Formats: sequence, structure tokens, C-alpha cells
Amino acid sequence: MDAIRWEGKTLYLLDQTRLPVEEVWLPYTDYRPVADAIRTMVVRGAPAIGVAAAYACCLAALAGEDLEEAKAVLAASRPTAVNLFWALERMAQTAKSCGGDPEALIAEAVAIHQEDVEMCKAMGLYGSAVVPEGANILTHCNAGALATGGYGTALGVIRAAHEQGKVNMVYADETRPLLQGARLTAYELVADHIPATLIADNMAASLMAKGKIDLAVVGCDRMAANGDFANKIGTYSVAVNAHFHGVPFYVALPCSTIDLSIPDGVGIPIEERDKNEVRTLYGVQTAPAEVDVYNPAFDVTPHSLVTGIITEKGVIYPPFQENLQKLFG
Amino acid sequence: MDAIRWEGKTLYLLDQTRLPVEEVWLPYTDYRPVADAIRTMVVRGAPAIGVAAAYACCLAALAGEDLEEAKAVLAASRPTAVNLFWALERMAQTAKSCGGDPEALIAEAVAIHQEDVEMCKAMGLYGSAVVPEGANILTHCNAGALATGGYGTALGVIRAAHEQGKVNMVYADETRPLLQGARLTAYELVADHIPATLIADNMAASLMAKGKIDLAVVGCDRMAANGDFANKIGTYSVAVNAHFHGVPFYVALPCSTIDLSIPDGVGIPIEERDKNEVRTLYGVQTAPAEVDVYNPAFDVTPHSLVTGIITEKGVIYPPFQENLQKLFG
Repeated sequence: MDAIRWEGKTLYLLDQTRLPVEEVWLPYTDYRPVADAIRTMVVRGAPAIGVAAAYACCLAALAGEDLEEAKAVLAASRPTAVNLFWALERMAQTAKSCGGDPEALIAEAVAIHQEDVEMCKAMGLYGSAVVPEGANILTHCNAGALATGGYGTALGVIRAAHEQGKVNMVYADETRPLLQGARLTAYELVADHIPATLIADNMAASLMAKGKIDLAVVGCDRMAANGDFANKIGTYSVAVNAHFHGVPFYVALPCSTIDLSIPDGVGIPIEERDKNEVRTLYGVQTAPAEVDVYNPAFDVTPHSLVTGIITEKGVIYPPFQENLQKLFG
Repeated sequence: MDAIRWEGKTLYLLDQTRLPVEEVWLPYTDYRPVADAIRTMVVRGAPAIGVAAAYACCLAALAGEDLEEAKAVLAASRPTAVNLFWALERMAQTAKSCGGDPEALIAEAVAIHQEDVEMCKAMGLYGSAVVPEGANILTHCNAGALATGGYGTALGVIRAAHEQGKVNMVYADETRPLLQGARLTAYELVADHIPATLIADNMAASLMAKGKIDLAVVGCDRMAANGDFANKIGTYSVAVNAHFHGVPFYVALPCSTIDLSIPDGVGIPIEERDKNEVRTLYGVQTAPAEVDVYNPAFDVTPHSLVTGIITEKGVIYPPFQENLQKLFG
């Protein structure tokens, strides 16, 4: 399963806002609509945003447009996922060394895309080792094939564990307000015939209390140098509940999601989104129009609640600050 | 604000499934559709279910129907809220002593209704004493005027505190899957000009981490003898998070919600509802039709996570088992 394709001189994105009801691929030949697609979450998930932005740079180069301006427009699309800035920076470096040659840029974007899939598979392999036989696994939001170049981070770990026959059940938080768990994770799990049960976010604690969750694994939009990390809103509540119930809590991410320039979670910028995402659903009003709304897209989970960090280079355990540094050493 | 009216020989229920978009009062002259109205949540909230069931007994008596049969049909509507069985039992006792005289039964139902409002006001008065000046309060689901005979239990505490000028902000969990927080609590708060902010359930932990919640107060569908209690799914997650963040956590309920026949929370029956409540919203599909769903309507919060129990007789503190016994002493 994938959600990003490059064919000829066109970028195709699977419109994730219309899943699971419709599977619509949108074509892009201009980088500006790709920035809009990131903003409106046609494409979402930190690694996938990075891959899409890399291809968008190719569209700019093919059109003979200024790459620095394209980079600025794309960087302004969403603030939290650091992979966006990482991929744009890597494309800018390539542009410098190749003099802006579109073919060289396309090769670099394709490399970013392929590396991302390979990193997910490596994460899957390392991460699946922490999954016990007959595991009941909780995940939040979508950190799957749709959120990455393919295969997935947290869902890559689950996929690999399932391939090894170790998964009894995956409980997917629906993930309000935009329901990425219900719309995307459930869609991926059903497509891959992985046993899946969808729950409202507020039901996870009750499952933990009943001993029905053996471990939780989530993705990540940006990790600070000490292991604090931002991920989809609600991740923190999963982490607190996992801690309270003694359930191991893992976060899976490629090293490109780690931002060593930020010492801890306090420094991670958190996007606040439109209040109508909470007051309405698919255009249907679900709350009084007059009520105020607080709608942060992400929250920060402190490293103290994390059991292990699953990366493409292996699983990292505390002390996280020291061991994350070693990854980059 | 109210949601239950008795006029002439007709029971009127405000259809809570259509709020906040439409305010539709439905008339009932037969007890059977009242059982359906409880099942489909036209009327919901433990105290309100009790009041509606009491009036439904009057409809049976007015039609000259068998009261024991009516009681059985109404008792089968929903399993968790104990007020339903309490009100039916009280009506059965009255029927015995008055020989089934409809007028005596109506007087008893009206008394149950009026007492409920008075109990809510007493809870509000006692409960507001635990609310600090300038309080930011979190509540879950709807334990308001709509969930009771009027005024509310948890929302009665908030109303009373607001009347005393102590409320800075009420954060209302939207309360998936049926969005009673978004549809009903936000509606009540906006109507009463109480400062309100709607959040998705998974955002509450993040607000607590930021120090933005001073206390949490929720309603209750059934409390066991030791203080464990069932309330709308998601309440337990609020309690765990409140505990982790050192936020005082209160539950407000009339004594009719306390079931001394059940020693602890394990014995409280928990209703599981239709899986499509999670897979769809207002008929719109939000998840793959093939994915399994776990949809408990309630969860159980252990008394160890409760700071205080707010009743119409005062606020009760640990040891709860002993102090709850004294209430009935």
C-alpha cells in the first residue's frame, strides 16, 4: 500500500481526506497545490509529508521556478513535522551540488522515498522484536503506509509482527477530530487482513484496565534531543494511561524525525487547527456554532513515559538523551 | 432548561438525539415508545431515565395496562443506570399502596421529578464549595439539566459555581461516540452564558499537563457500595489523567444512583452498544464497514481515583465505603 507516486513528470497523491469511502489519486504538476495538499491533509504523516515535499521541489525545478521560493512556500504548509524541513533541506543541498538539474533532483526525491520505505522495514524488523507472542497492540492515529513512503513506522512494526504471526489483535484509536485511526489505520489493517478493532479514543484506558493491551506503539512528528516527542493529539493520554497500567509504550520513527536542535518537548511548535474540525464532521454540525474550541493538532509526550524508541538503526532505551546522541555520533 | 415535561395525560421528551441543531419535543401517551426513547437515547442520563420511566408507568396506569409488565419492558431498555430500576421500584411500591390509581401514580412521578431537581440544586450548593475562585473545570459527557429532572448533577455543580462567580472556563469533552458533550453540554453552557470550550476527548490530558484544569467533575450512572462507579465511556481515562496530574476529581450524583447491593465496580453491568455508533456519524461512514468495533457505553472508575463524591446530602470523602454507608444509615 502507498499514497505517493511519481510517474513521468507528475506527482500523484492518494487523497487521504476521502478515505476509506473513496480512493481518489490527485495529479500535481505545480508545487503550490502540493503545499495546499499538505495543509489540508490530502497527504499527512511526518515521513509522507517529507517525501511529498521532496517531489514538489522536482515540480518546481521542472517548471524552471525558483527553488528557494518553492522551499519557503512548502515549509510554511505545516509547522510540527520536522521531516518536512529535513527533506526540503536535503533537496536544497542537492540543488546546490547539481546546479538545479531536474533529473538530479528527481533522483534525490526518489531516493528519499525509497530510503523511507527501507527505514520503515528496518523499524518493523527491530520493533517487532519487542512484540510478545499473541500480542494485543494499541495504536493511535495513522503511522502506516499512508503516513510514510510505504509500510509505516508504528504500523510497520505491527505489520512485521503480524508477518511473524505474533499479533492477536490491533486496537486502533479512531483519533479525533480528523479520524485518521478510523479512516486510515482501520483501512490499512483491513486491507492487509490484520485483526483489527476500532475504538473511540476514550475507550483505550478501559481496555488497559481489563489487561487487554500488551503494548502501545505510536508514530512521531518531531522528537527533541531528550526523547520528548510530538505526535497526533491524544498520544500523550495514551502514554499516561500506559504508564498508569504498566503497559509498555513505544514510539517508532526514522532518525529524520529527530530534531537535535531542540533540547526538549517544550520547544516543539504545536499547530492549532480550525475550530470547525471539532464543531462539525463532513459538514454536519455536531456542536453549537457559538461554542469556543481548543484544537491542537499534536501534543507532547515526555520521554519519561516512553519505554523504547524504535528507529531504523535499532530500539533505543533510556537514558534517551545519551543514546539518541550516539545514533548521530 | 429541562428535557422532560408532563402535561395533562401526556409525557413530552425533548429529542436529545437531534440537539443542538433542532429542538423537537416528542409526545408520548403509551409506555412502550418511552422504553424505545430510553434505548435510542431520545432521553438519557441516569436521573432523567428514572424520571421518564416513572412517567411511563403513569401512561400504563392511565391506559389500564398491567403495571408489572410495563415495569419489565421499561427495565429492559438500558442496563447500567440504576436510577431506572430505583424509579420503577418506587412506582411499583406506590401502585401497591394506592391500588394502581393513576392520579396517585402521577403524583408520585411528579414528586420523583421535583425531588430530582431539588437534589441537583443541593448537589450544586455542596459541590460548588470545592470549586476554587477562577476555576477551570473539565467535565465529560452531559450530566446537566438534560440528563436529570433539571439543573444537573456535575453541571449543577458548575452552574452553582458559576452563579457564585467562581468559574473561569468549562472545558467540555465532546464525548465520543455519541457526542453528548459537544451536542448537549456545550448547548447547555452556551444557553446559560457559562464560558465554555469544547475539546475532543483526547485533548484533556494535554490541558492538564499545561496546568489549565483545576478540577474535573463528572456524573454517574451507578455507584457501588465502595465508591467505584460507572459513567459514560471515557470517564475512567479522565480520572487516570487527573490522578497523574494531581487534578482533583469529583463525581456528582443523587443517592438514588448508589447501589449498595453491589460491593464494587466489577459487579456493575456495562452496556455494549451498536458498532455502527463508532463506524458512522449521522449516517456518514467514517471507517471501513468491515472493521470490528468495541463500543462499551460506560466504563468503571475505581474509588481510589476519586477525590470526593458530591451528593444532595453533602460531599463525601474517603474512606468511601464507610462514609457511603453512613449516608443511608
